[in-house]
Amino acid sequence: MERRDGRGNGDLRSIRIYRNYTKYAEGSTLIEMGETKIICTASVEDKIPSFIEEEGGGRGWITSEYSMLPRATQTRSRRSSSGRTNEIQRLIGRTLRAVTDLKVLGERTIILDCDVIQADGGTRTAAITGAFIALADSIKYIIKKTGTGEGALRSYVAAVSVGLLHGEELLDLTYEEDSTVDVDFNLAMTSSGEIVEIQTTAEGRPLTEEQLQNLLLMGKKGISLLIEKQKEILEPTLGEIKLFGK
Amino acid sequence: MERRDGRGNGDLRSIRIYRNYTKYAEGSTLIEMGETKIICTASVEDKIPSFIEEEGGGRGWITSEYSMLPRATQTRSRRSSSGRTNEIQRLIGRTLRAVTDLKVLGERTIILDCDVIQADGGTRTAAITGAFIALADSIKYIIKKTGTGEGALRSYVAAVSVGLLHGEELLDLTYEEDSTVDVDFNLAMTSSGEIVEIQTTAEGRPLTEEQLQNLLLMGKKGISLLIEKQKEILEPTLGEIKLFGK
Amino acid sequence: MERRDGRGNGDLRSIRIYRNYTKYAEGSTLIEMGETKIICTASVEDKIPSFIEEEGGGRGWITSEYSMLPRATQTRSRRSSSGRTNEIQRLIGRTLRAVTDLKVLGERTIILDCDVIQADGGTRTAAITGAFIALADSIKYIIKKTGTGEGALRSYVAAVSVGLLHGEELLDLTYEEDSTVDVDFNLAMTSSGEIVEIQTTAEGRPLTEEQLQNLLLMGKKGISLLIEKQKEILEPTLGEIKLFGK
Amino acid sequence: MERRDGRGNGDLRSIRIYRNYTKYAEGSTLIEMGETKIICTASVEDKIPSFIEEEGGGRGWITSEYSMLPRATQTRSRRSSSGRTNEIQRLIGRTLRAVTDLKVLGERTIILDCDVIQADGGTRTAAITGAFIALADSIKYIIKKTGTGEGALRSYVAAVSVGLLHGEELLDLTYEEDSTVDVDFNLAMTSSGEIVEIQTTAEGRPLTEEQLQNLLLMGKKGISLLIEKQKEILEPTLGEIKLFGK
Amino acid sequence: MERRDGRGNGDLRSIRIYRNYTKYAEGSTLIEMGETKIICTASVEDKIPSFIEEEGGGRGWITSEYSMLPRATQTRSRRSSSGRTNEIQRLIGRTLRAVTDLKVLGERTIILDCDVIQADGGTRTAAITGAFIALADSIKYIIKKTGTGEGALRSYVAAVSVGLLHGEELLDLTYEEDSTVDVDFNLAMTSSGEIVEIQTTAEGRPLTEEQLQNLLLMGKKGISLLIEKQKEILEPTLGEIKLFGK
Amino acid sequence: MERRDGRGNGDLRSIRIYRNYTKYAEGSTLIEMGETKIICTASVEDKIPSFIEEEGGGRGWITSEYSMLPRATQTRSRRSSSGRTNEIQRLIGRTLRAVTDLKVLGERTIILDCDVIQADGGTRTAAITGAFIALADSIKYIIKKTGTGEGALRSYVAAVSVGLLHGEELLDLTYEEDSTVDVDFNLAMTSSGEIVEIQTTAEGRPLTEEQLQNLLLMGKKGISLLIEKQKEILEPTLGEIKLFGK
Repeated sequence: MERRDGRGNGDLRSIRIYRNYTKYAEGSTLIEMGETKIICTASVEDKIPSFIEEEGGGRGWITSEYSMLPRATQTRSRRSSSGRTNEIQRLIGRTLRAVTDLKVLGERTIILDCDVIQADGGTRTAAITGAFIALADSIKYIIKKTGTGEGALRSYVAAVSVGLLHGEELLDLTYEEDSTVDVDFNLAMTSSGEIVEIQTTAEGRPLTEEQLQNLLLMGKKGISLLIEKQKEILEPTLGEIKLFGK
Repeated sequence: MERRDGRGNGDLRSIRIYRNYTKYAEGSTLIEMGETKIICTASVEDKIPSFIEEEGGGRGWITSEYSMLPRATQTRSRRSSSGRTNEIQRLIGRTLRAVTDLKVLGERTIILDCDVIQADGGTRTAAITGAFIALADSIKYIIKKTGTGEGALRSYVAAVSVGLLHGEELLDLTYEEDSTVDVDFNLAMTSSGEIVEIQTTAEGRPLTEEQLQNLLLMGKKGISLLIEKQKEILEPTLGEIKLFGK
Repeated sequence: MERRDGRGNGDLRSIRIYRNYTKYAEGSTLIEMGETKIICTASVEDKIPSFIEEEGGGRGWITSEYSMLPRATQTRSRRSSSGRTNEIQRLIGRTLRAVTDLKVLGERTIILDCDVIQADGGTRTAAITGAFIALADSIKYIIKKTGTGEGALRSYVAAVSVGLLHGEELLDLTYEEDSTVDVDFNLAMTSSGEIVEIQTTAEGRPLTEEQLQNLLLMGKKGISLLIEKQKEILEPTLGEIKLFGK
Repeated sequence: MERRDGRGNGDLRSIRIYRNYTKYAEGSTLIEMGETKIICTASVEDKIPSFIEEEGGGRGWITSEYSMLPRATQTRSRRSSSGRTNEIQRLIGRTLRAVTDLKVLGERTIILDCDVIQADGGTRTAAITGAFIALADSIKYIIKKTGTGEGALRSYVAAVSVGLLHGEELLDLTYEEDSTVDVDFNLAMTSSGEIVEIQTTAEGRPLTEEQLQNLLLMGKKGISLLIEKQKEILEPTLGEIKLFGK
Repeated sequence: MERRDGRGNGDLRSIRIYRNYTKYAEGSTLIEMGETKIICTASVEDKIPSFIEEEGGGRGWITSEYSMLPRATQTRSRRSSSGRTNEIQRLIGRTLRAVTDLKVLGERTIILDCDVIQADGGTRTAAITGAFIALADSIKYIIKKTGTGEGALRSYVAAVSVGLLHGEELLDLTYEEDSTVDVDFNLAMTSSGEIVEIQTTAEGRPLTEEQLQNLLLMGKKGISLLIEKQKEILEPTLGEIKLFGK
Repeated sequence: MERRDGRGNGDLRSIRIYRNYTKYAEGSTLIEMGETKIICTASVEDKIPSFIEEEGGGRGWITSEYSMLPRATQTRSRRSSSGRTNEIQRLIGRTLRAVTDLKVLGERTIILDCDVIQADGGTRTAAITGAFIALADSIKYIIKKTGTGEGALRSYVAAVSVGLLHGEELLDLTYEEDSTVDVDFNLAMTSSGEIVEIQTTAEGRPLTEEQLQNLLLMGKKGISLLIEKQKEILEPTLGEIKLFGK
């Protein structure tokens, strides 16, 4: 079996991350993962959600909104948000909160808007990978502007999809592959190889334990390449700024 | 460390499944998992969703709606459905479809309504376990009434939550435990030990691979007990009816 | 003419009221009136609606929400609330407020959630009868906890439907009877025989004055039996607590 | 006790009904009951609701929508419809259907739009009284245009409010009176003195049976005057057209 | 070419403005422009929108809501507001704000509700002309009641539609004309001949510059007649009250 | 007075139009007008709106949806569409229909989605200019694929804003300028200098006729430059394809 675009089973698609893609947001990226293209912006607001206020405050919040342009897909879809959209934006928010120290962030909310310009599979995982850079830049902005927030990030995080087609494991599925695999799931991991999210979120047949182990391994390799890419982009620009704590 | 209700770390709460709980539905259960109580009804409709019709029909569909009574929880909540609700009902639908042969089911839709009467943790996993029995009964009803649908089920399926607290693995978390664990996820497996769904769906810290393996193992044991329970209830009433195909 | 279930024209169906049906609510019942089954919970909140606040406060409020599980009926219905639902919950709220001294209740809101598990006619009247017990228990809870609220109730209240079929009066209609009668209405009365609500709320033909008088009489007898039942349940548990004022 | 506007307890306010108030509708009135002013239009559509179609058709339907202009009241209110609005429009529709032979009407829907221009109490009862004339005119229009529909009406119908203030019965309450009475209800009756609707629909204290009888009597007298008024307006214009059957 | 109603190309339809049409509003008119009939009410509220508050307050606001009764048109339409409705009410609000000194008005909001009773073309322009009188009366009310607000109006304003049919210019289009013209636009001007709004807002073919000039000229003449009418109505009732500043 | 970005009063900002910006749409552009950036996609659907069907069909339709990414602006805004959004998308649709022969287009709908990535004033006019190219490309696609649709466009169309600041006319306002001008309006014109839309759509003071003439002249010059740009992009790629009729 050969993949339509000639990739090996364990290969990622080509990835490009353009930083500071828009001029108003405190952090922003255009991430391209093959033909999948997403604009991620991070907006910093000096307020916290009411449920944190009621718990006495003292920490911040990170949340996400995910949406597709109507013609990001083969056939035009309507603008109204669906259950699927809700599920995806909850996933993005949770994943980014898992690598952030919300107390160090302080009483602020960072909103990650992920708007899909073109969808060719793996939009939710690409959104996580791209939104992480926008998040990091917005925390850099906070540190520079207020002198607080150093060490608010605990680690890098990136995500990728894996799937099983006729018994073979595949990394980073395109839309076409995603429609034909027997099962697929999404994986988000940190720079230290820990698992942040693991989710079967699409139709699928059951999976043996061995298959699960193989897919985890493949996903882990892919994610470590994505995090390398994130580091290449982010590190040279940090200078004295201490973004990561522990 | 000892659990508040005296259970061992790998113990399930007591489980009760009342069948034919309401008189109108084609299948219905009241499932109680400790203090968590859910009414699951299966409604059979002789039509299929438009997206299947557009694909030429020839198969059925299984979907789910999940809701909580306003006072199922400690403090009253509003009736409007949230993003969390959407995510849960999509999970329930997907899990049940994964063990059903939709072609054998034929051009019908079965809707599983899961209404939480009292919530004490693990509502989405208990809903899956209880809804499976309602689904099975509604397929029995179809077979009896129409002579079609034999073998529409591929296997049993049940679900449970697992979590990590101060480094210890816990099975089947109560609401109180759920609020204090470092990480938890939900696991749905078949009677042959295959994984149908694995999902981190709540706030959490990252997880090492070893921890993941231990939690998978503990979940697997719990689920096999739940499926034993399902079999005890269902099998004596099947008689000649062949519910399971392959 | 004989009623399908063998009852006499002036007979009630069998009635069962299970108290403290759920563990979180300040008052809760499962009421069964024949095959009609409703969960009623009373939730006490320490705030008042804005329209009372604007009038200067100094009194409480009682309100109700009414809903049906989708498969409470012969054919599954959708979850969204309709105009009919609005009308019913307004009726329940008004009826309970009519027997409550809102000043004695103090600046609190009690919300009565009435969720129909199974519907076989008379859901709104059974909801009133069952919600009254939940309301009484929630006021008992307030008295015990705060020492205020004694005498907040003025009297018992219960409700029943009556209808006319081929010139004969019928008490407590089932769903099947409800669909065939020429006219029916709902009646709520207090323990002292006063009328709280009288409502024609379904399709019907006009009614002569004599027919109205006969139906009022029949309804009154039925309600006095329901209130006897309420007293049997409530009184033995009151002890020193003075629930009723004047 | 004297009424603010000098009326006797059993007196109606002055009533004016302007017919053909708008030029497009098949029937239309502006009804003024004291300072309460409502535009009622009847729109005839050659289709029937889906629930009648599913039952095999063969009859028509009458429905109503009720709304207030935002500044119909002392303080401006928002345009969105409320539960109260739903209840009122259901009442108007039911009342008019009760005096119509839907089979004779044939497979048509008549929609009665009742828009309150100025509200001074009794808007729902005035809407019924005024909408009846618009309905009659629209049936006249159908008979003239199609030759079918003769005898579609069974009788006249009108409505009025009654209430109890400090033990005295009052007819046709103004907004100010409505806010101070101990209890009030609405009554709709036919030209032959039969009861179509009787409804307590606002806050109130319980009512003795004797009080109910007195209020019914007072309401009946008021309604017979309203129906006289309707006859004065309608009859001279009917000519050969047979509007009423039995 | 002759106009259906016999008017010359540059003639207005007959116009009538009834003042104080409803008793509760601080200003109200029924404006009739031919068969187009609109109720305009002005409601004064002692609060300002949040966006003005955030800018430090110190000035008032004027806004509008526009709606049609369902049967204001040939065929009944639904009550829900559309994009077209939004556009019209924004136009009305902007036009009236353009002739008002919001600082002199002070921290108040005036809401102009324009409800179309009967629509025969030119509803948005008639609404502006009629709402201006309601606005003026509500400012008169403010001046009388509070002694502030003198000179809050800068000038009169009225509006009219113009269109091009087979190369001829037409003033004040009826609904029938509006449906057949090649292009039409709406024009709002002040008493000093200045342009407040100019809008093509319906389907149309492009327009040469010369045609634009001719239409502007025709519209200007029509508006000056409308403003004369407004002056006739308003001026005799002002007495000492100084409504207009500069 | 000098403009912040050094432009002369009658100068446009720099303009860039990237064609085929997304791979799925039948036509797509990214238009940049200074710092304003908008993605315009044209989606062709083989169906027509119901109102055209009811009129007997025989022609197509062009419609538009306009939206802003939440962080397209200085401060983040919510995703829900507002009245302003409705007005803008209606403007874009009307403008493009005015230069299209809908009968030649045939029974198809073309939807122009205009999504603002970054907003710095003039988004609605830039959307028109950019959407025209996407529309032209989608018609080219139809001609190529079906052999029908030749000559469906009547002319080019582009749009620009003009405004008055301290008595001076300004072309193509930035967001900052837009907030300070005394009045501004939007102008859409064809390649033959005809006016398609002229709209005051924002707050403003009245305008003398002379000022209007000067602004029209300035707008006309700007638009002819924009249309030159459109021609440069489009013409070299048309080859044999006859896009424009008359």
